[in-house]
Amino acid sequence: MEHPAAEKATPNQSNVSSSQADGGASVRVSEALEARLFETRQHSLDLAEPLSAEDMVVQASDDASPTKWHLAHVTWFFENFALRPHLADYRIFDDNFNYCFNSYYETLGPRHPRPKRGLLTRPTSEKVFAYRKHVDDALRRLLARNDIDRDEVTRLIEIGINHEQQHQELLLTDILALFASNPLRPAYQGQPVGLDTAEPTPLNWTEFPGGIVRIGHSGEGYSWDNELPSHDALVQPFKLANRLVTNAEWLAFMEDGGYATPTLWLADGWSAVNREGWESPLYWERSDGGWSQMSLQGLLPVAHAEPVTHVSYYEADAFARWAGKRLPTEFEWEVAANSTSKQMEKSQGVLRPQRSDASQGAGPKQLFGQVWQWTASAYLPYPGYRPPAGAIGEYNGKFMVGQHVLRGSSCATPSGHSRATYRNFFYPHQRWQFLGLRLAAEVE
Amino acid sequence: MEHPAAEKATPNQSNVSSSQADGGASVRVSEALEARLFETRQHSLDLAEPLSAEDMVVQASDDASPTKWHLAHVTWFFENFALRPHLADYRIFDDNFNYCFNSYYETLGPRHPRPKRGLLTRPTSEKVFAYRKHVDDALRRLLARNDIDRDEVTRLIEIGINHEQQHQELLLTDILALFASNPLRPAYQGQPVGLDTAEPTPLNWTEFPGGIVRIGHSGEGYSWDNELPSHDALVQPFKLANRLVTNAEWLAFMEDGGYATPTLWLADGWSAVNREGWESPLYWERSDGGWSQMSLQGLLPVAHAEPVTHVSYYEADAFARWAGKRLPTEFEWEVAANSTSKQMEKSQGVLRPQRSDASQGAGPKQLFGQVWQWTASAYLPYPGYRPPAGAIGEYNGKFMVGQHVLRGSSCATPSGHSRATYRNFFYPHQRWQFLGLRLAAEVE
Amino acid sequence: MEHPAAEKATPNQSNVSSSQADGGASVRVSEALEARLFETRQHSLDLAEPLSAEDMVVQASDDASPTKWHLAHVTWFFENFALRPHLADYRIFDDNFNYCFNSYYETLGPRHPRPKRGLLTRPTSEKVFAYRKHVDDALRRLLARNDIDRDEVTRLIEIGINHEQQHQELLLTDILALFASNPLRPAYQGQPVGLDTAEPTPLNWTEFPGGIVRIGHSGEGYSWDNELPSHDALVQPFKLANRLVTNAEWLAFMEDGGYATPTLWLADGWSAVNREGWESPLYWERSDGGWSQMSLQGLLPVAHAEPVTHVSYYEADAFARWAGKRLPTEFEWEVAANSTSKQMEKSQGVLRPQRSDASQGAGPKQLFGQVWQWTASAYLPYPGYRPPAGAIGEYNGKFMVGQHVLRGSSCATPSGHSRATYRNFFYPHQRWQFLGLRLAAEVE
Amino acid sequence: MEHPAAEKATPNQSNVSSSQADGGASVRVSEALEARLFETRQHSLDLAEPLSAEDMVVQASDDASPTKWHLAHVTWFFENFALRPHLADYRIFDDNFNYCFNSYYETLGPRHPRPKRGLLTRPTSEKVFAYRKHVDDALRRLLARNDIDRDEVTRLIEIGINHEQQHQELLLTDILALFASNPLRPAYQGQPVGLDTAEPTPLNWTEFPGGIVRIGHSGEGYSWDNELPSHDALVQPFKLANRLVTNAEWLAFMEDGGYATPTLWLADGWSAVNREGWESPLYWERSDGGWSQMSLQGLLPVAHAEPVTHVSYYEADAFARWAGKRLPTEFEWEVAANSTSKQMEKSQGVLRPQRSDASQGAGPKQLFGQVWQWTASAYLPYPGYRPPAGAIGEYNGKFMVGQHVLRGSSCATPSGHSRATYRNFFYPHQRWQFLGLRLAAEVE
Repeated sequence: MEHPAAEKATPNQSNVSSSQADGGASVRVSEALEARLFETRQHSLDLAEPLSAEDMVVQASDDASPTKWHLAHVTWFFENFALRPHLADYRIFDDNFNYCFNSYYETLGPRHPRPKRGLLTRPTSEKVFAYRKHVDDALRRLLARNDIDRDEVTRLIEIGINHEQQHQELLLTDILALFASNPLRPAYQGQPVGLDTAEPTPLNWTEFPGGIVRIGHSGEGYSWDNELPSHDALVQPFKLANRLVTNAEWLAFMEDGGYATPTLWLADGWSAVNREGWESPLYWERSDGGWSQMSLQGLLPVAHAEPVTHVSYYEADAFARWAGKRLPTEFEWEVAANSTSKQMEKSQGVLRPQRSDASQGAGPKQLFGQVWQWTASAYLPYPGYRPPAGAIGEYNGKFMVGQHVLRGSSCATPSGHSRATYRNFFYPHQRWQFLGLRLAAEVE
Repeated sequence: MEHPAAEKATPNQSNVSSSQADGGASVRVSEALEARLFETRQHSLDLAEPLSAEDMVVQASDDASPTKWHLAHVTWFFENFALRPHLADYRIFDDNFNYCFNSYYETLGPRHPRPKRGLLTRPTSEKVFAYRKHVDDALRRLLARNDIDRDEVTRLIEIGINHEQQHQELLLTDILALFASNPLRPAYQGQPVGLDTAEPTPLNWTEFPGGIVRIGHSGEGYSWDNELPSHDALVQPFKLANRLVTNAEWLAFMEDGGYATPTLWLADGWSAVNREGWESPLYWERSDGGWSQMSLQGLLPVAHAEPVTHVSYYEADAFARWAGKRLPTEFEWEVAANSTSKQMEKSQGVLRPQRSDASQGAGPKQLFGQVWQWTASAYLPYPGYRPPAGAIGEYNGKFMVGQHVLRGSSCATPSGHSRATYRNFFYPHQRWQFLGLRLAAEVE
Repeated sequence: MEHPAAEKATPNQSNVSSSQADGGASVRVSEALEARLFETRQHSLDLAEPLSAEDMVVQASDDASPTKWHLAHVTWFFENFALRPHLADYRIFDDNFNYCFNSYYETLGPRHPRPKRGLLTRPTSEKVFAYRKHVDDALRRLLARNDIDRDEVTRLIEIGINHEQQHQELLLTDILALFASNPLRPAYQGQPVGLDTAEPTPLNWTEFPGGIVRIGHSGEGYSWDNELPSHDALVQPFKLANRLVTNAEWLAFMEDGGYATPTLWLADGWSAVNREGWESPLYWERSDGGWSQMSLQGLLPVAHAEPVTHVSYYEADAFARWAGKRLPTEFEWEVAANSTSKQMEKSQGVLRPQRSDASQGAGPKQLFGQVWQWTASAYLPYPGYRPPAGAIGEYNGKFMVGQHVLRGSSCATPSGHSRATYRNFFYPHQRWQFLGLRLAAEVE
Repeated sequence: MEHPAAEKATPNQSNVSSSQADGGASVRVSEALEARLFETRQHSLDLAEPLSAEDMVVQASDDASPTKWHLAHVTWFFENFALRPHLADYRIFDDNFNYCFNSYYETLGPRHPRPKRGLLTRPTSEKVFAYRKHVDDALRRLLARNDIDRDEVTRLIEIGINHEQQHQELLLTDILALFASNPLRPAYQGQPVGLDTAEPTPLNWTEFPGGIVRIGHSGEGYSWDNELPSHDALVQPFKLANRLVTNAEWLAFMEDGGYATPTLWLADGWSAVNREGWESPLYWERSDGGWSQMSLQGLLPVAHAEPVTHVSYYEADAFARWAGKRLPTEFEWEVAANSTSKQMEKSQGVLRPQRSDASQGAGPKQLFGQVWQWTASAYLPYPGYRPPAGAIGEYNGKFMVGQHVLRGSSCATPSGHSRATYRNFFYPHQRWQFLGLRLAAEVE
């Protein structure tokens, strides 16, 4: 099974089609969509730019996939879901690719085993680039036609864009996993000029009154099926930290014996600590007199004011217990995110979470663009949830067991791919994504 | 980590102590409690009666524990939590037993590894019976004294009773696991005279209106900490089946290719099906022209009208999807259970779930005493949940990740151990308990 | 696959039958054999005497078997190989026992999986004792008859005796494994009065000239098939230590960093050291200011003059390299054993290897009755080796890959079961038997 | 631990230096050696020629290594053993490479874990080519000097050449493993024009009288340390098949239920068959009406007359038992190889074993250049064996446990790397090399 981080949910069908509904021919919409489509397609190539053919073929772990596989799989997604059913004269690029690049769609037949994606030295990356071009050309032809089901094609292109964006994030985290396992500790991205030694924004809390709140996606814009249906939920009064937990705070947890104190941990978490020998976040290593951290900028000293990242749910939960606090539920997080207009802070092109900026005023900050934030909520269907029909129904629903929801977005999330209702999800032991936390507490 | 089915949660402290509050010396309460205590203690011995010393020492799997271990562990629980702190002249029976019979209390020091409990041929079962007597005698002395903290002792004895009851159920399911792995297929309990070939009660549905409902334990009587605090929850309108899913219905699922159709399954469930080679519930085996089922009555033909049991969450969820329905949430289940006074149907001494009885009228039946019922709810803390202080705080809270809640009770649950707010929990792959399901659906 | 230590090889058929050949009715021989048979049968019961029913049912590891299983399996062996084919009116005791107590004879149908022997709480030990009696009675009837193929029956009874003797040794080592994993560290046998603090015999060497030597069993008496055929081998001049390596010498190896120096080890051995965390022989544990050793007499201080035991081939080989010596080949060992008449030193009832006795004069001592001695020889067939026909042909031949030969016998080997040509064999990582070593070297 | 197939043994020191002894300055020898050195170095590049950078970075399994790693490791070998100690002004190319490209020399410090060699996308293949050039240039400078210890340098260059040749064979077998796991089934080498449907040479036998024979390397020429010392051995009369076992014979074994008949197998072999699901040699797959075989020429129909290859020791041994024959010992094989002058048949550039040619006359054929031939001999030291001093002593000796000797050479063995005394060795379960068999039998 492919990890579904890159495979989040089918879209809010009614919303998308309603945005089309008012224009029968919808030519204009299509042009905007087309622009967005090819920007997205280009962005994947841009992300692969710093990598050699060798970098692109290897799989760092069973969780990760090779860059080349990502580039081909998102292309196969368009080929399979948009071109085959809707472009009559479309010529399949290579019959083997359905086997090679299907991720986890049982409906679409057998596929290459996930842990062996890194063995696919053929097709070569060159051929994969040709595949991308072949499909892009066909998509251009498809979007130029007037005799197609434009609503359905629009819906599928939207899914394809959002799907490719998810893989753009995975591409980066998978490359980090690869480079972190390389003794040369290569950098994907040039290192910043100097280490930011500023203090973090002081920790403070915002209170929320609770009550019956509206949860999930509604109105315009794209969403995955797992954000639906929009529904009422009852939330108790709570308070939420204004910023993410920092590396300095995490070091205090470590120095206080956090990783050696069983009573701080969930039982499964304590097993993981012992089985895996965890004593710090993933990618941290001891160096003279301190800790360093492997990042997309290479091996760097741990910066105290930056948000901690690459921690599992187990670690996040233990930290919160140590701090006398707890993780927020996903509903609490969504309430807070809906309460502020300062949501969409962007990472400034640096693929590492940045410290919070005290000048931004009161209220929860760092909601987006730094690290995904573990919530106390298990990943389960919303009341009345129905997966879409067909293969695309396998996108989100079948992963709704054993995982926890993360909210927000990370420094590796593509621009335009964040929103307050977005539900990301990982297993509680996973750490290779940009995963961090924000504290919550009861109102006393 | 011991599976916590037998280790559920510390009690509803305030309730229990309030039931003591109105009588300073509380002599009467103490006598009733004392009677219940020694009935419970005796019942454990009764359950062990059909077993040889050999049967009592072996561990069928990592999930299961030996009978002897159960008998000793519940005794250690009283020794450690009630006698050591509250009976001044208490003499520890054997210093090694804290190591041998501590289940998972990190606070109480190192302990014998769970998967090696079956290696403890010493202490002998004879010595464990002597240990029980030693502790029972001391408990009698403790309960006879007037100079103790009666509220606290009452609280601890209550916990001890409920804890021992949980192990009574485990003792039975663990013996079933042991006997099922024995090629002689021994019976723990005499077989019933004839096979019941009656039809099950027809399936029908009760609608519930939803709204804000009160969830969790309140008022008098015992509860574990994980049933607390009592709180409001918002429930959508729903409908619930009047009875449990039967073996006949499960056979229809199997015959329709249920175990071979990936789109019916959660992704982790489908992995489990393939990894474990599941093609029926646990303990089912093919026999000439049909299926048999290993039970505490030995190997018997699968009885069509009886509730299906020994199915995992993955299987329950797949069945519900196949049936076009879903599993209820734990809140929905609790709402339904609170709506009826016919809750406490009892198994008539037969340690196998019984078919539903059509004569009982409308509304949900088989809520208790047959099989635990998987719910769609992950096992998570209620809002404002706080584990109790001390070692006993490890009872429930630390298992709140990766598991699902089951509601009701089973044919192996001791009398007096069921209630509408009870939360049992297991991992989604587990099957060796008496685990079944009841369907729910949206109101259209 | 059952470990074949207890299952060594079919007999030297021609020898045994030739000892019968001179008397058609052979009444006298049969009486001696009968006496030996029932002494052997009784000895198994004597060995089980100190054990409770609980001790007898549990399996300490996949390599070990329960006492009860040993007692039943050797009985099944007589039932299956002697009674079924040769006692016309023999009534099978229980049809299930062929499944339960077949060890590894593929020819004889499916069998209970070896790692699950410890789950067989049924049949009870009582029933197994009844099984033994049933088979013993039938054997008596068989041996009293005049109308049978006495040569073949004699051959089979001889095999059965030797087979049961092998299991007697395994029974003891498997009980040691069980008790060593028990936190109470029980003793199977009363502890000796005082610790022997005498010095060991000084180490010295005997030279042997080499040349063409006769290897393998010939002449009268019993042997397994793997000691056959007797054949010539070419041996270079060599010298052999007069005694076994002692605990004191092993401690010196440990103190010199033996377990931490990769260049002393075979590559697979070094992997085992790291994977298993070996830092001493099996059953050694650190105690205040020194080392203790779990034994059949319970936990005792390591006695310096006693032979080291419970070491793997990897460890024995590393020790020899550290000492600047090597292990002998099995041919060298056999040459040395044939050169001395003092072979049959006996353990004096103490089930622990004893220090060598300097008063015994020159030449190799401690050849038998202390510990099996690892040789440099892989366990392979002798030139011209043919396994016997039928199921009994599975006894030895099918294990001839990946193992090393040990020579001599141990403190747990039954009296009358040792000889210079005997070939024991274990995998290079195994340690739970009484396995030690003696050094050899080239003649310079 | 790296599989030592490519890492075979330090050389016959005395022989090599004696070939130098007669010329003080030995200028001439050095030129021949230099020529051979750079031919060997060039041949590695030629082998990598058909591969993309992607093909060169991936590791097909824990046993295999990436092409790039092979190319770098053999270079590191020269750098570390020849240049560092003997070329005073040598500049290490990159300090990290000792960590990256040390295979298994414990003496030379920590190294990159073997199963993670395939993660080394950096250094890039381009950089590895630059590394090769840097080292080649330095080797040229070293060989041009007059002020060095020429005997020692000659010895080390000889080792380096032979070491690189071993890796050339591994490079090919590891690429086959990689391509065989690719759903596109790529070919490393162009496919032959037509399928050879000729019949194989009829099977016949050559008798050898046995007696005391000389085994191991002596006289001139290169050898590894494990071929030493030359010594006498006693061999019984035997007969040997004139050719290798063919695919047609193997198909007969399969059709006769060879893979489903436990009594044909060593116990460990039968475990492997069941655990791994073996039902044919490695790389065979069922196709319409027959079997195909993945090869360096891609997927081809199994050619009946060609030697079977990619079979484990377990399979070879089972086949021999099925055929009523046995595998030869390594001494028997060497005796036969020494008896004929037709040893050095060459594969004609086709990297697949070829059928035997009946026109070649009587006596054993196909000794070299087709497939390595499993022998009945465990891989153990010859009497008096001593590994060389220093890190190079780790080359062969530490692998002398648990493996079996193969003799001859394969279609992938470089020209000039075969001889009658050569000892190759693999674990009995391994199959990914070109491993086949030839039958032997007793003389009746």
